[in-house]
Amino acid sequence: MTGKPEGTQQRATAEMVARAAQVSRAAVSRAFNPQAPLKPEKRARILKIAEELSYTPDRAARALVTRRSHLVGVIVPDVCSPWESQEVDALTTALQAEGFATLLFKTRIDSSMDETLLTYMRGFNPDSVIVFTENVRPHMLSRFLDRAVPIYVNYLMEREGDGTLPHEPDALCDRIDVNQWEGMEQAVALLAGYGCRRIAYLSGKPESLGQQARRKTLEALMARRGLPAPVIVPGDFSYDRGYAGTLDLFRLEGGADAVFAANDESAFGALDALRYELKLRVPEDVKVIGFDDITQSHWRSYNLTTVKVDLEARVRALVRLIQRRLKAPNAPALAETVHTRLAVRGTVG
Amino acid sequence: MTGKPEGTQQRATAEMVARAAQVSRAAVSRAFNPQAPLKPEKRARILKIAEELSYTPDRAARALVTRRSHLVGVIVPDVCSPWESQEVDALTTALQAEGFATLLFKTRIDSSMDETLLTYMRGFNPDSVIVFTENVRPHMLSRFLDRAVPIYVNYLMEREGDGTLPHEPDALCDRIDVNQWEGMEQAVALLAGYGCRRIAYLSGKPESLGQQARRKTLEALMARRGLPAPVIVPGDFSYDRGYAGTLDLFRLEGGADAVFAANDESAFGALDALRYELKLRVPEDVKVIGFDDITQSHWRSYNLTTVKVDLEARVRALVRLIQRRLKAPNAPALAETVHTRLAVRGTVG
Repeated sequence: MTGKPEGTQQRATAEMVARAAQVSRAAVSRAFNPQAPLKPEKRARILKIAEELSYTPDRAARALVTRRSHLVGVIVPDVCSPWESQEVDALTTALQAEGFATLLFKTRIDSSMDETLLTYMRGFNPDSVIVFTENVRPHMLSRFLDRAVPIYVNYLMEREGDGTLPHEPDALCDRIDVNQWEGMEQAVALLAGYGCRRIAYLSGKPESLGQQARRKTLEALMARRGLPAPVIVPGDFSYDRGYAGTLDLFRLEGGADAVFAANDESAFGALDALRYELKLRVPEDVKVIGFDDITQSHWRSYNLTTVKVDLEARVRALVRLIQRRLKAPNAPALAETVHTRLAVRGTVG
Repeated sequence: MTGKPEGTQQRATAEMVARAAQVSRAAVSRAFNPQAPLKPEKRARILKIAEELSYTPDRAARALVTRRSHLVGVIVPDVCSPWESQEVDALTTALQAEGFATLLFKTRIDSSMDETLLTYMRGFNPDSVIVFTENVRPHMLSRFLDRAVPIYVNYLMEREGDGTLPHEPDALCDRIDVNQWEGMEQAVALLAGYGCRRIAYLSGKPESLGQQARRKTLEALMARRGLPAPVIVPGDFSYDRGYAGTLDLFRLEGGADAVFAANDESAFGALDALRYELKLRVPEDVKVIGFDDITQSHWRSYNLTTVKVDLEARVRALVRLIQRRLKAPNAPALAETVHTRLAVRGTVG
């Protein structure tokens, strides 16, 4: 199955390698598939002979025959934000172990995606596409994908309730349901237990459905406890807006007993504004809670109490969805659930 | 040039789109190439008709004919460390603008690369491969790459001197020369100006040639000023090892006037250990300098003085190297130089 396009030099074939190594053609195939079972010595011998003959299976040629590209497209707004980079890192490791390569696509600044780029992505014929933004909608994506069924992250707004994924019956997509209710309920209980009544919500990018769902969940949880509605502080997930928004909250809006941030990075901005500019003590004067539990949250300067999304479980669920879909290309929408819990550190208590 | 593999359904061709849109075959090609010049209205019209006919250029088919995959392989040890994630992010944006997609490959924990994975990478036939680790050596990689010439980051040890890239005359590779001397010279001058004599070097992973070069550069710069050789503190680029190494330095080794860290993240660990565990004041009692200038370095809790590598210039240089190599596949080794300078913030002074 090696590619021998006209006009390029003759390439070694799998049959040639099999003959030289005195193994079957199938064994040669398995040697080049990281997840196929094969004795290490046998794999080493086949790869050595393949190298001597300058043989490699050509994925482009194989993709035309098998209709499997072994590529997984990942659409992200920013690889450089800590949560996304930690997720892309863990995902790439897990996909590699299953024989897939990660193809990265970045969205535009408003998290939407250029149509040219979507067409371009389709040309690579990915086996699956994981979409880490809500601004590239399923119906739009399905117009551009050939056979890949996209996977979306769906943030639930109630314990068992509706999520952020728009209802688009014509566009098939699979999903990870993140139950953020669980961890946020623990967060609100802890704040209430310490007597907080006036709680501010430091929001993420206004267009992010995930953070909109976080705000609605917070509002619902606070209403159930008879607490006044949260003060909404505009933000965009960044440290800088978290910092500036917190200054506005305390200098213009009368402050708060606690700040619940839409993500950890903006919670760091809130913490630094409270301590270094407003000269308030955390947790004594103001309590702060984040969302995600990125690596930086355990750094001593922040030591942040936060709603932890289990990244490892989320990545495993994503890989499982890809494998389930490849086994059942025509199955109706598939879903996996990921849970959250409160990680208690130094910014509350 | 659309792919019509046997056994799959008939697909629309570029000719069919050209006819329906009343444009040339070449215009259809350009419409699908994000960097090709074409009037926006014309591109929109062609893409609309292409969509109606369910036409997309199949990259796999095209790659067999043109021997161009439009894929750039990126080999990284960790996407999740802040510097790498910021670089991969900026690089993906820049590559996308030039019509390339980024294919991510992660190394093993020891930063080497599995041979199976290298063979696998070759199968995708990348146009270029950027290697962000020294443990995958040029001669090893060149055995596995078909036509792509790999690009390495080469840290210079002297102002104009030797770098970290091993001399391997049989393995062609292009390189980015990072002149770290410039910024580090400014760093040592600043520390000397504040009277520091005993300076510790908080190292990165021992196998990293980049950090070895940083240590040698520091030793050379300090020797020139008649300062005693730096105290070497073992580390691995991580916050946690930076924290623990700093405790060892002050509790076992007699401390230091200043800590120069191999990267910013481990400098944060040093800062937190100094302030929260050793109860020392920075910069009054101990001064701290990092290397990289990641986004987190301007966060108020750290506000780190650091040797800044110009990320934007580095990414532009990488993209230029790819384009230069595609234009001249048989040219001898190509190189671009990137400069460094000291970014002065609150941890010195």
